[in-house]
Amino acid sequence: MTQRTFTVVGAGPVGTLLAISLARHGYTVGLYEGRPDSRHTDIYQGKSINIALSDRGWTSLEKIGISPEVKDQSIPMYHRAIHGSDGSLSALPYGQEGDAIWSVSRAGINEYLLDIADQERNITTHFEHKLVDIDFKTATATFRVRKSDELVVESDFTFGADGARSKVRRLAHDLPRFSYSQSYMPQCYIELNIPANPDGSHKLEKNALHIWPRKDFMLIALPNPDGTFTCTLFLNYSGDPSFESLTERSAVESFFESNFADAMPHLEDPIDTFLEKTAAPLFLVHVFPWSFNRKVGLIGDAAHAIVPFYGQGMNCGFEDCAELDALITECDHDWDRIFSAYEDSRKPNGDAIAELSKRNFVEMSDLSGDRMFQLRKRIEAKFADRFPDLWTPLYEMVTFSPDVPYSEALRVGDEQNKVMEKIMAIPDIEADWDEEYVMDRLFALASKTFEDEQ
Amino acid sequence: MTQRTFTVVGAGPVGTLLAISLARHGYTVGLYEGRPDSRHTDIYQGKSINIALSDRGWTSLEKIGISPEVKDQSIPMYHRAIHGSDGSLSALPYGQEGDAIWSVSRAGINEYLLDIADQERNITTHFEHKLVDIDFKTATATFRVRKSDELVVESDFTFGADGARSKVRRLAHDLPRFSYSQSYMPQCYIELNIPANPDGSHKLEKNALHIWPRKDFMLIALPNPDGTFTCTLFLNYSGDPSFESLTERSAVESFFESNFADAMPHLEDPIDTFLEKTAAPLFLVHVFPWSFNRKVGLIGDAAHAIVPFYGQGMNCGFEDCAELDALITECDHDWDRIFSAYEDSRKPNGDAIAELSKRNFVEMSDLSGDRMFQLRKRIEAKFADRFPDLWTPLYEMVTFSPDVPYSEALRVGDEQNKVMEKIMAIPDIEADWDEEYVMDRLFALASKTFEDEQ
Repeated sequence: MTQRTFTVVGAGPVGTLLAISLARHGYTVGLYEGRPDSRHTDIYQGKSINIALSDRGWTSLEKIGISPEVKDQSIPMYHRAIHGSDGSLSALPYGQEGDAIWSVSRAGINEYLLDIADQERNITTHFEHKLVDIDFKTATATFRVRKSDELVVESDFTFGADGARSKVRRLAHDLPRFSYSQSYMPQCYIELNIPANPDGSHKLEKNALHIWPRKDFMLIALPNPDGTFTCTLFLNYSGDPSFESLTERSAVESFFESNFADAMPHLEDPIDTFLEKTAAPLFLVHVFPWSFNRKVGLIGDAAHAIVPFYGQGMNCGFEDCAELDALITECDHDWDRIFSAYEDSRKPNGDAIAELSKRNFVEMSDLSGDRMFQLRKRIEAKFADRFPDLWTPLYEMVTFSPDVPYSEALRVGDEQNKVMEKIMAIPDIEADWDEEYVMDRLFALASKTFEDEQ
Repeated sequence: MTQRTFTVVGAGPVGTLLAISLARHGYTVGLYEGRPDSRHTDIYQGKSINIALSDRGWTSLEKIGISPEVKDQSIPMYHRAIHGSDGSLSALPYGQEGDAIWSVSRAGINEYLLDIADQERNITTHFEHKLVDIDFKTATATFRVRKSDELVVESDFTFGADGARSKVRRLAHDLPRFSYSQSYMPQCYIELNIPANPDGSHKLEKNALHIWPRKDFMLIALPNPDGTFTCTLFLNYSGDPSFESLTERSAVESFFESNFADAMPHLEDPIDTFLEKTAAPLFLVHVFPWSFNRKVGLIGDAAHAIVPFYGQGMNCGFEDCAELDALITECDHDWDRIFSAYEDSRKPNGDAIAELSKRNFVEMSDLSGDRMFQLRKRIEAKFADRFPDLWTPLYEMVTFSPDVPYSEALRVGDEQNKVMEKIMAIPDIEADWDEEYVMDRLFALASKTFEDEQ
């Protein structure tokens, strides 16, 4: 058998990781990216875009045999630093002692993976190759090269790893039985910046994800290694307050002053930035199937564009790659079986993390500023600490338990929710939460709910 | 103010009716259709495609000031003629005595409306103009004329009335906050034919919609004025039995013989047709908004492609036109307000009839062959007859009550369903259904449920 060839569309983190995985299985891979190589051209214009990586991401890298050295340049965030409206500051840990999510430079991890890909004999990488068309019967892809020539690339299989606005997916739109949905969240966002101190240190606590939860909207800040924070303001598109309603400078000023007073001394030109920037939309994409004619597949955001409120987008994409990597071995390179097993196993998880991410806006923007929510977290943490086999809090399942599929986390989390609603309905729960009878009651309820699963 | 101009993309029944309505309000309308004029070219290749029109459709035509003479050439269907697996034949009326749904030739009604449009001074109609592009800021549309020249058409507003696979909607895909979903039903369909008798009469009862309900699949037949019936076989795409599983001639023969024995003497080459034709998919489209920049709108199937199981597709499209017609007067030609009011009022109704149509497959293919279902219908009919102010059966609300919005019909139908489940749970309901205590019980339940609505 001649060596089979793959075209991977999109050399972002997921596409590049996929290319490496395929190459290490012995396939010949052409990796195509529409944009220039960020290692030689400053396509980010000095902007730090950071993302959260957690255990699923790191574990997936390791599963594919990539030592995640990039972790050393990332910043662990051990807790949420919650900035109250009254100027108070409180810490809400992400998990057990030592558990962290990691603020990672998107460009950094992408370039790290591209460097690894460059060392793989079987991968050729092509920048400024923009996908124009794809033949879903033959997997032949056509690219426009540096805005002029067209290049037709034949291969045995093609993967679309071309992100939330995937062109591969778009081109699949009219294939038979292509189910698709895109839906917009009420919120939009703009990015703001907190510069470093003159000595390069961080102006806010470095090892935390900062949140200013204000119910219908919120500001968050993630640390960068250079001492800056990249901040994101999530706010409704319309209504009051919203990007649509806040158009007067004085109104914007008073909005920032009254809601983010403690951040104002640190933020770089927030008012001008707010007035000048166009707010970006947040949308979710659901699609099925994830493969077409067993020749063309979708992976990462192209298969499941989600909202960023669980910090799981890239983690989920890396997990797609790890699953595919495992299936190649399991199915002994039989791509009819691989495509089918891949979409059957990953689709429910993509749907689950989409749902969890959507729900987590409420948790971040509302509940994390809520006393009862924080109490509930404390009770859950205490119980989980005592009965770790019976209870892993939802956030920990999603973020620190890579062996628990997202779909399982969603299901168990819903069961836990019913249990905790009963606990929080105990009349004196605020006074009694640390009493032994609360633990007993929770144990009884949890045992009953999860007894079959032990 | 100079006279405002409209471009209507799609000269099917809905687009043509919209053009007439706009012209009668004094607007100048360009009506553009990609296909040739069916009145001069036989684009249907002799195929009769019929659709069901009911009160909403006729009423909407009248509201726009169009006398529906075409009703005279249509065939009223007063009941479902249910062909049992055992060869039995039973009649299930659609509504009250004299209520009918109408089998209408799609080409016939389209040509009827086109003839009316031709008489309107303000309408110019252009066939073989295929939409290529649209500028959503200016409403400027570009058409390819007879596969060669491009024509750029400027107007104040543009409507996409270009059907389930609307190009206008497709071009809107990347506009900000464009929410969209397309989803496929498990069933596909092929059309079959029952020819007329040599004397031109119908081989089956003329004034009925024939159904062969077989639970997971069904055959239906609608009468045409020329004595033929157009039949549609709805069958799963995959599984057993399905279009995918039935590939051997002998298997197809035995499938037809065992399921549609009484139809077999009448059907024209069903086996060859089944083996030769590619089954067409059934899909639903949800989209929002229905207007863009208050310059471009969607209407009919372009805004709400539904499945055909309630026979409401064209009715709903005509209702869109009637609603818009009323809003032009109501909002005094203020198109900012018209677009906004139009999508706010019609979107919930489009969603409701989409949901109702999807559910009605089960009703048609399963329940209408079910003894308990027929009993339930009989009890409802008896009760509705006695207390017409308290109870209109769902089918009648949808089909014969144009004053009840689809969304209202869906809501009330769900309430009725809960009531009827309690009635059908009466232990001896099969024996006792005609007893007075059943009516009493139903009256008590219905009064309680709907008391606030009286």
